[in-house]
Amino acid sequence: MAPKKVIYDTDPGVDDAMALLFLEYSPDVDLVGITTVLGNHTIETTTRNALFLKDYFAIAAPVAQGAGRPLVLEPTVPPTYVHGENGLGDIPLPDVIQSRVHDLPAHEFIIKTVRDNPGEITIVAVGRMTNLALALRQDPGIVPLVREIVIMGGAFGFKGHSGNVTPVAEANIIGDPHAADEIFAAAWPIVVVGLDVTQEAVMTTAYLEALRDASGRAGQFIWDISRFYETFYRTTTGLEGIPVHDSSAVAYLLDPTLFTTRGGPIRVVTEGIAIGQTIQQPNTRKFRPNAWSNRPDHAICIDGDAERFLKLYFDTIVAGAAARA
Amino acid sequence: MAPKKVIYDTDPGVDDAMALLFLEYSPDVDLVGITTVLGNHTIETTTRNALFLKDYFAIAAPVAQGAGRPLVLEPTVPPTYVHGENGLGDIPLPDVIQSRVHDLPAHEFIIKTVRDNPGEITIVAVGRMTNLALALRQDPGIVPLVREIVIMGGAFGFKGHSGNVTPVAEANIIGDPHAADEIFAAAWPIVVVGLDVTQEAVMTTAYLEALRDASGRAGQFIWDISRFYETFYRTTTGLEGIPVHDSSAVAYLLDPTLFTTRGGPIRVVTEGIAIGQTIQQPNTRKFRPNAWSNRPDHAICIDGDAERFLKLYFDTIVAGAAARA
Ligand SMILES: [Ca+2]
Ligand SMILES: [Ca+2]
Repeated sequence: MAPKKVIYDTDPGVDDAMALLFLEYSPDVDLVGITTVLGNHTIETTTRNALFLKDYFAIAAPVAQGAGRPLVLEPTVPPTYVHGENGLGDIPLPDVIQSRVHDLPAHEFIIKTVRDNPGEITIVAVGRMTNLALALRQDPGIVPLVREIVIMGGAFGFKGHSGNVTPVAEANIIGDPHAADEIFAAAWPIVVVGLDVTQEAVMTTAYLEALRDASGRAGQFIWDISRFYETFYRTTTGLEGIPVHDSSAVAYLLDPTLFTTRGGPIRVVTEGIAIGQTIQQPNTRKFRPNAWSNRPDHAICIDGDAERFLKLYFDTIVAGAAARA
Repeated sequence: MAPKKVIYDTDPGVDDAMALLFLEYSPDVDLVGITTVLGNHTIETTTRNALFLKDYFAIAAPVAQGAGRPLVLEPTVPPTYVHGENGLGDIPLPDVIQSRVHDLPAHEFIIKTVRDNPGEITIVAVGRMTNLALALRQDPGIVPLVREIVIMGGAFGFKGHSGNVTPVAEANIIGDPHAADEIFAAAWPIVVVGLDVTQEAVMTTAYLEALRDASGRAGQFIWDISRFYETFYRTTTGLEGIPVHDSSAVAYLLDPTLFTTRGGPIRVVTEGIAIGQTIQQPNTRKFRPNAWSNRPDHAICIDGDAERFLKLYFDTIVAGAAARA
């Protein structure tokens, strides 16, 4: 089977960088573009980081810079307590970045790439949904032309998992709830990989050590950028390791059988204490007409095989590193 | 151990009537009052039904009439498609009710009873939280005097369970979300028995037949009032039986070991598409200051032993019926 053509919409970000390597090193992926968005840091920093990653790992895909602010909300202070002051765990970064951003802004890059490759583009969106919403607003005609959208975002309460910003809200969605609600209103195929499954997949310190020792500079890089991130999770959640958020979306792309999904329309709360919450109305129950009525079905992941996913990540990075050594 | 003194705050309602018999027939309960509230029907009808049940089963506890409208929201049309036109599954009701309501309105009855029995009163609240909120507003001094409040209400998303009015909202809470949010703000001990566990406990048609055949007129009554209700659940959720909502709160009262709980502050959404949602911030994770900060902890049931609960209900009704035969 030909590799899947993928646009990676991202806000690097520690786990974004780890997922980018997962995409770049997978033989099943043809990475055709990287689009940046604010989130884990400002748009200037996430774009700088994407360009740095392109340089450092000789990634062919262009980097298109995206939204620097949410559709409606005011931008908030970047969560440097999670991803570090530079967004990549405070590893030293070079003063000079070689790569330059693409001429098109992210949402126009998405539109053009989808129109140039009808039915072929999968978008893996692991930041706020702002770029996707802007693309949808500017050209709703792309909806039937997109092959699939795989999102890392949201929290649906399965297995007792809460949100990571509030008890019900996950960072990517609460970062631009209006954008998320707009993209779920469109009838393109969306699969949501939320905290319910990403928090079940934990890379322990031992796992990251083994990966470091088995995969050369990629492994060393993953180890280095994840030190700060690991400390954040240990002190806030007691985890001895890191939950694998953004790479879980890549895992769905590479092997959907890793996950169990549930169908139904999805809304995002845009006000009040539940702002940023993703709510799916399950198709297994009838409800009276409500805010979910007449919305298209989308899939959410409600369970995953964490062990098999972690093995897939490990093997992909090790093989990709060996091929490039 | 002396029986627990219980005020039953209720909106009968099919499952309310079933839970009332569970309380009345339990040797571990001293039912000291029944307070009514709107919900499954108007306050006139739920009060009429409570008085009818008092007559029909010769219940000694007085009936105090409570709130006829929510604190803030406009009253909505009663859900006659769930509980029937008369709120009791459309069984024939007598034209004349013998019992009369108590002189005090429900919230003042609650205040007086709690003050007369400091530290001894448990309130089992299986309707909207309006009466409790009114009692709290009028006399916040009762907070340390209440032994425990056990609520049937809310939905927290465990085991994939959704709400029953919207994907996130349960009927008792969405019926007066402001009242619920107020009572969760007070530091009295509250245990919430939500849809996460009540929907796991299903009385099948065969169970209800066996109960009918084993417990005389109580069993026949439960069978008769539940026919309409069972049809509603079959057609909307595909269940072959009825989920046991209100009796689950009584089950917690009688045997807390039937349930697993989780602690943390609880808020209720009072606006937008998530209105009526109960959200607990779990104590197992640290969050930055938010709408849950500085709120008292309360317990929610996250799992239950449905089989053992159903046996307790069955045995209690059969033994209670035999003692009264
Ligand atoms: Ca990200
Ligand atoms: Ca009730």
